[in-house]
Formats: sequence, structure tokens, C-alpha cells
Amino acid sequence: MNEKEMTKTILAGREKIEDVYFVACGGSLVDLYPGYYFVRNESKTMHADWITSKEFVVTPPTHLGKTSLVFICSHGGNTTETVEAAHMARDLGAAVITMTHNPDSACNDDSMMPVIYDWSDHVSEKEKPQGIVLRVLNELMKAQEPDYIKYDAVKDGLEKADGIVRAAVAKVKNRTWLFAEKYYKEDFLYIMGSGASYAAAYGFAICSLQEMQWMDCCYLNSAEYFHGPFEVTDEEHLYILLMSRGRNRIMDERCLAFLEKYGKKYEVIDADELGLEMIDDSCVEYFNPMVFYAMSVAYRNALQDKRCHPTDMRRYMGVVEY
Amino acid sequence: MNEKEMTKTILAGREKIEDVYFVACGGSLVDLYPGYYFVRNESKTMHADWITSKEFVVTPPTHLGKTSLVFICSHGGNTTETVEAAHMARDLGAAVITMTHNPDSACNDDSMMPVIYDWSDHVSEKEKPQGIVLRVLNELMKAQEPDYIKYDAVKDGLEKADGIVRAAVAKVKNRTWLFAEKYYKEDFLYIMGSGASYAAAYGFAICSLQEMQWMDCCYLNSAEYFHGPFEVTDEEHLYILLMSRGRNRIMDERCLAFLEKYGKKYEVIDADELGLEMIDDSCVEYFNPMVFYAMSVAYRNALQDKRCHPTDMRRYMGVVEY
Repeated sequence: MNEKEMTKTILAGREKIEDVYFVACGGSLVDLYPGYYFVRNESKTMHADWITSKEFVVTPPTHLGKTSLVFICSHGGNTTETVEAAHMARDLGAAVITMTHNPDSACNDDSMMPVIYDWSDHVSEKEKPQGIVLRVLNELMKAQEPDYIKYDAVKDGLEKADGIVRAAVAKVKNRTWLFAEKYYKEDFLYIMGSGASYAAAYGFAICSLQEMQWMDCCYLNSAEYFHGPFEVTDEEHLYILLMSRGRNRIMDERCLAFLEKYGKKYEVIDADELGLEMIDDSCVEYFNPMVFYAMSVAYRNALQDKRCHPTDMRRYMGVVEY
Repeated sequence: MNEKEMTKTILAGREKIEDVYFVACGGSLVDLYPGYYFVRNESKTMHADWITSKEFVVTPPTHLGKTSLVFICSHGGNTTETVEAAHMARDLGAAVITMTHNPDSACNDDSMMPVIYDWSDHVSEKEKPQGIVLRVLNELMKAQEPDYIKYDAVKDGLEKADGIVRAAVAKVKNRTWLFAEKYYKEDFLYIMGSGASYAAAYGFAICSLQEMQWMDCCYLNSAEYFHGPFEVTDEEHLYILLMSRGRNRIMDERCLAFLEKYGKKYEVIDADELGLEMIDDSCVEYFNPMVFYAMSVAYRNALQDKRCHPTDMRRYMGVVEY
């Protein structure tokens, strides 16, 4: 099914969707955040929430039901709590989209709306979870909200995103090596981002560094930095700052100004230098995270090589029972 | 105004409240999380969102308007972005409750609904922000949702909370000294919590440790631990685990079982040992964070004494321009 057919299926037997839930764990949850942010800031008919799967299962939101759309994502497709969340939502009558990389998994189940995505290098951004979510939401907004005016801009952004991401990855390659060369022995760092890209900072921390490099770090919302966390800042602390393009940029800029004055070790990953100006200002906020995700991969790959720590090495995940 | 009068004022000229926004920065934002969680999991007529002030201002939620209730909190009462958020919400027609400790601040403004709270040691929990929010929400639910059945249980919990918190603080005193004695030289730690107490872990990290002790740490949702962050766990890493009472407890228990097997240095702060069994099971989840907040203060005070780092010492906040 393409996104138009999915929208038809979503709206079949429903006057409209009133709630959109974004439910997954870890890196898959990260991929759903831009969609959540999009609904919260664009839709006049829908509400949105972004919830880790187990929490969704043990304390289900009161509005979950027939007028809900639930985006589910599980790369392997069998994450216990995510599958449980999907089944619960389905059984309560919600429209459930289950995105997975694994066709032989519980997520590929026609009682829901499965979308099997390919994760190979050649695959376009619009065919990966962030892109799939935006495509569906863009169609749903068009179908459900007559005064929605960003349809063409988002569609255009989806066409351009892959080229932007590929160019950005090529552009930063040397920069990531220099970063790794300089900082590979750091014990700890902070990663900051804002708006739709807050979860890009979160994912950079918990997936790329904590999980894949066993490196300690902490993620922060740029807007919160000045309300506590900045007190640790000095010339010894390392920061990575994801600077978005869009309305939320001023929150990141404030962090940068502070780091320039009181910090010494900080890496700025700036959407303004990474091709995002090609995307319309009205919707660029929702595209920053695709580029930042690719950046987290680029930096972690450089760290992997310098630290001789294979990104796929796990001591617990898939190795022991828990 | 008491909470009944506030509820009348909130509903004056409105058929009902449809959206409740919880808006503040840092520690004040932390105090609003249990209310957000309460609405998300109890209300059938209202939606909720929890948003840091600047983000609320630069990307205002689409539903913000006449049928919204906005809880604002600013201890000093003049936090620029929080006051801006309050004014924006008021100007869009929302009912706005502005909680502050400072009667001479921009938050004490009769064009909104100001609540001046006292922060002294003798003040009851129900008179502090978390308690005020729960009191108002409990009345609002009673007024707006005829089938709301937790009114008496929440009211009873509000009466008991202060005694529970005081007893818990007395009980852990020696334990916090032992913790500080053992770990005061640690470079870094993780703090985990779940459900309504997720933000208690967040506040413990960004306020009590990063801001007040200049200690590096990272907060985690217990439910997310197994989807990345647990790969750093070993016998060298330090964890504080906030174990809630309520439906979300199973997420914390899973972390504990893992730490018992693969970790060595972890401090368990367990609601089950801290008097929370006195609160009705139907609503205890929303009361855990009051106790956990007091625990973060207790632990940071012990660290302050052992580390000789005054909790009120700041190098930036209120000291330099930013």
C-alpha cells in the first residue's frame, strides 16, 4: 500500500482520526518523534502522544480507541512490549501501522497495516520509518483538514531529503574523523537538540553511544540547558550540539553562544551547513531529524574505528536473557 | 482561591476544558509531570501535553485556545520564557494558573490565576506545586466527568502525602549519608524512573546533581533502559533506581533484576519502603513523585556535605548574563 491507500484504509469506517500515538522502544521510538511533533504543531483535528511501548501497555492513554491511529515501529519486529502495544491498540479498534524491517516477524500481520521497510544503503529516506510516517501524516492531513496548506512543501521535502542526507554524510566525513581523533578517550559528553530534533539528541545518546559504543553520555533539550544542566559546563566538558533549521533554532543558538563563552570542547552539527535550506521553511523542522540521525551514524562510525569498538558488539542485547 | 473556586473560575464561560498544558522550565517543569501523567491516564474529556516553556512559545500547540487550561510554574516567577508562555496562553483565551513562590513577580498577575506557594519546611505537600496541580485536577475531573471515581482516593492521598514524605525523609537520612560516603567521588551516574516518576529521575539529574552539585549524570525511563542504555552497565557504573508503587512498577523491577545480575553499584529508592502503601492503589502512581522529589533533596544534601559543595552555589545561574 502506498500512503494514499493507507490513508483510505485508516479513514475507512471512521469519520476522522482524533488521536495519533507514536509507540516503540529505543531507536525506533526516536524515529517516531518528528511525526509526533508534526501532529502537535500542525494538526487542528488530531492530538498526538509519543510513548515508550511498555508504558503504553501498562498505562494506556484514555483516548485510545476507534478514532486513534497508532504508529508502531520495531526494527526486528518482535520486540515483546511493542507487539503487545500493537495488539492492544488493534483490539481497541485503532488503526495500527506496524513498521518493521523483518518480514518474518509479529509486526508483519495483516490484522494491522504492516509496512516492511528496507534498510540498505541505497534506500531513499522517504522509504525509511521517519519518511513513511511523514508521508502518511501528510496524506492524512490533506484528507482530513481542508485548510492544510503544507502538503506540497512536505511532499517536496520528502523528495529532496535523500539527496540532502547523502550530501551531508559525504560532507562531514573528515570532520567526524577529526572529532574521533580528538575526543575518543572522553569519559562522558552531553548531546543537545531541540524541537522535533530533541529525540535525535536522545537517539544519538542512547543508541549510537550508550548502546553501540558503551560510552556514557546524557541528552538534553536545548531549551532546558539553562535551567540546571549548564552549571556543569566548563572547558573540560564535551558537548555535541544539534543546531536545527526552523523556529526552534533560537533555542540551539542560545546554547551555542553560551558554549562559545564558557566552554571549549563542543562540536556543532549545524543543519544550516548540511543542505536543509533546500527544504521549505514552513516544514523544515520535521526534516532536521533525518539528517541528524545520519550524523549520529557518521560520528559513531568514526568513533568505532578510532576506539576499535565494533558498533554491532553487544554484551546483553540478543546475548543474554533479561 | 481554593481548588473548588479555581475550578469554577476555570469553567466560567467554558462548556469544558479540552486541553491541559503543563508549561515551565527545569525543576518547575519536573513538578508538573505527575499532573500531565494524571490527565493522560485518567481523563476522558481532556488531552494533556508537557512542554518546556521556550518550545511552547516558539512552536505553540495547535489546540491552545479558549478551551485550554495551562499550568505555569516558575519558582522565582520571572523566568522570561515562562512568563512569555503564560501571556501567550492568556492572550489566546486559555485559563492560566501561574504558580510561583514570589509574590513580587510577573507570575502574580490577576489577569491570570496566580497561586503563591510557600516553600518553607513546615508547608504541607498539598500546598506545593505538585499538590496544587493534583488538587485542581481532581476538582476539575469531578466537575467535568460524571463517571470520575477517584475523587475521594486522590483527596485522601493529598491529606496523607505530607506525613508520608516527612517520614520517608527521616527514614532515609542514614542511608543517604552512607551513599555519599561510598560514592561521593563518582564521576558519573545514571538515574532511572518510570511512569509519572520519569520526571523525578529527570529532576534528580538536572537539578539536584547537574545544577546543584555540578555532577555529571544521565536520566533514563526505566522502560527504555533495555533498548540501548543497558549496554553500558557493568560493575563499575553507578545507578540510582526510583522504584514506584503502581502499575508502572514492573518496569522498574525489570531494571532491578538486571542490575542485581550484571551491576554492582546501585542504590534503590523504593516507594514500597517509603510509606506509599498508605495511598490507594488506584491513584498511588501520581503520588510517588512527591516522595522521590524529597529523596532527591535528601541525597543531594548528603552529597553536599560530603563533597563540600554547597547546593546553592552557582557559577552561571543568577551570576552571569546568558
